[in-house]
Amino acid sequence: MIVLFTDFGLAGPYTGQMKAVLHERAPQAEAIDLFADAPAGNPRAAAYLLAAYAAWFPPGTIFLCVVDPGVGGTRAPLAIEADGRWYVGPENGLFELVLRRAQTAQCHEISWRSQNLSASFHGRDLFAPVAAMLAQGERPAMLARAARRFPDWPDDLAEIVYIDHYGNALTGLRAGAVAPAASLVIPNKMRVAHAATFSAVPEGSAFWYENSNGLVEIAVNRGRAADALGLAIGSRLSIAT
Amino acid sequence: MIVLFTDFGLAGPYTGQMKAVLHERAPQAEAIDLFADAPAGNPRAAAYLLAAYAAWFPPGTIFLCVVDPGVGGTRAPLAIEADGRWYVGPENGLFELVLRRAQTAQCHEISWRSQNLSASFHGRDLFAPVAAMLAQGERPAMLARAARRFPDWPDDLAEIVYIDHYGNALTGLRAGAVAPAASLVIPNKMRVAHAATFSAVPEGSAFWYENSNGLVEIAVNRGRAADALGLAIGSRLSIAT
Amino acid sequence: MIVLFTDFGLAGPYTGQMKAVLHERAPQAEAIDLFADAPAGNPRAAAYLLAAYAAWFPPGTIFLCVVDPGVGGTRAPLAIEADGRWYVGPENGLFELVLRRAQTAQCHEISWRSQNLSASFHGRDLFAPVAAMLAQGERPAMLARAARRFPDWPDDLAEIVYIDHYGNALTGLRAGAVAPAASLVIPNKMRVAHAATFSAVPEGSAFWYENSNGLVEIAVNRGRAADALGLAIGSRLSIAT
Repeated sequence: MIVLFTDFGLAGPYTGQMKAVLHERAPQAEAIDLFADAPAGNPRAAAYLLAAYAAWFPPGTIFLCVVDPGVGGTRAPLAIEADGRWYVGPENGLFELVLRRAQTAQCHEISWRSQNLSASFHGRDLFAPVAAMLAQGERPAMLARAARRFPDWPDDLAEIVYIDHYGNALTGLRAGAVAPAASLVIPNKMRVAHAATFSAVPEGSAFWYENSNGLVEIAVNRGRAADALGLAIGSRLSIAT
Repeated sequence: MIVLFTDFGLAGPYTGQMKAVLHERAPQAEAIDLFADAPAGNPRAAAYLLAAYAAWFPPGTIFLCVVDPGVGGTRAPLAIEADGRWYVGPENGLFELVLRRAQTAQCHEISWRSQNLSASFHGRDLFAPVAAMLAQGERPAMLARAARRFPDWPDDLAEIVYIDHYGNALTGLRAGAVAPAASLVIPNKMRVAHAATFSAVPEGSAFWYENSNGLVEIAVNRGRAADALGLAIGSRLSIAT
Repeated sequence: MIVLFTDFGLAGPYTGQMKAVLHERAPQAEAIDLFADAPAGNPRAAAYLLAAYAAWFPPGTIFLCVVDPGVGGTRAPLAIEADGRWYVGPENGLFELVLRRAQTAQCHEISWRSQNLSASFHGRDLFAPVAAMLAQGERPAMLARAARRFPDWPDDLAEIVYIDHYGNALTGLRAGAVAPAASLVIPNKMRVAHAATFSAVPEGSAFWYENSNGLVEIAVNRGRAADALGLAIGSRLSIAT
């Protein structure tokens, strides 16, 4: 299983061209779209999202990760094996939280190159072929080395990292980092208290809960939390106990 | 073939996680996205859409249906076999029109539970595994019983139930319920007459026609009917003969 | 591999129903979404996009192409073999640039018809079955004849033909048609100069570059070019040397 985590959007040709490469090179592998709308050009927010969602997938899964605002510049291409899963993508912090939380991790700089490497679409021309080779049990040319690390990034990020289709606002906080009795203070100073589920609060009420992937998420029962509360990717939160 | 009918949106992780479950448990089954943008949180409108589109698929198809505003509450999970097709999803009316129109139907309450059942994502943790088991020819633990019915819902719904990518407005009316000579009166009092196809009316003109799945649909030739006529999901129609 | 090139949008039932047909008739073929958001109802702009992107795919690929504002009218259904690839879709100019650039091409009018041909969804009822039959190595009933041609359309189109997810504006110009020293003059009279990559210009600066499929594309480093420069599909450009 090759899982796609990108900021390409589902529209447009980018995901399709990557899948064509995966199909050509690893026809038996199943390509699964996890996020095509990861925080655009924002590897820091994306790193918290990726670490939380990747943990749900079984060992052996290969994550093809392209949130890559520096494409065409000097950032290196990486392939990281962490807790039995592979992560392929740019060295820009996208894998920082995966690395920090892994029991075992080995980082490699990819030295393999396609004969047709475009300057602007390494997802198609570099990362997808490498993910496909790994899925086939092949090992493309790569060199083990330490990854560039981002020590200033917190273990849990008290910011909104994703707004979903329902308007729910996902944070970079794991539920274990916030006591159930604590409230989240959002930028407009409002305090949002905890509830176990949507149906535990009246319609129209805001609450936070542990979502199905272990992240703290701010929601409104039968409403759109992001719109109602003025939340966007990057909105900062504080925890009030 | 497992057909997905949800209000998850195509973006975000929800459809991808469901497909990962389907792939793990039923690797030979093909997962097809039918609607990822069924009427959000609106099982009544969705029920008319589902019944109209499901009828097009061959017997043996399994429909994985998640329009589930009551997730985490007390509504039961169902697996219904109707006219040779399976429908898996919440007991909230979503299957009312399928049941009403079926020649033969058998309803089951699903008693199978995952060891990792989240409170908020039964699509991934309950309905997808059950759909996959059915696709594998397995029968998860379930108990035959009568479904909760919604007798007040009409056989054909004179409301808009879906706005498509082109701005066409689909109704919950089957074409057989409206005489070709009849007009539809929309909320702004305008009367919309019948035409056979788009090219049968001048550019910019509104008309209704029988769409390719047998529903009455309001369209504007080379225009966006919903925008031009002020139609949205829930807009009520009357039939003028 | 069957590649989908449509203006259906990813939402809604249209792509899913086509994929169900492909899966039923050609279960071994892989269906890849290339564009579901090709220029809506605009075969001329779409023709330049299709020709540029199709060239990237290997011979043997089958393109299922539905940008078909005249569906239900008199335009013929075509199946074209060009340079070892098949193109299935309506005769409305969508294949003009593929034909013009092909070394070898053979056009066929499709005479095969489904017993259940709807008036409004030939993608599902006619073009998808034909694409699936070709993928299976079958030859549906079709008659070789010359295609209707569009001689007034230029070899390279100095217009915007697509706005992508990042707000980048793709033109119908191949990079070989514009000297690197030339600028593009956009409708607001601004001149946009060439750069090799995003990182070659300061953040917020506009430039044009050869994109990963050989088209001239207008972009803003870490910005949304279409919004910043007021570009939309159909915006005309001139080349200033």
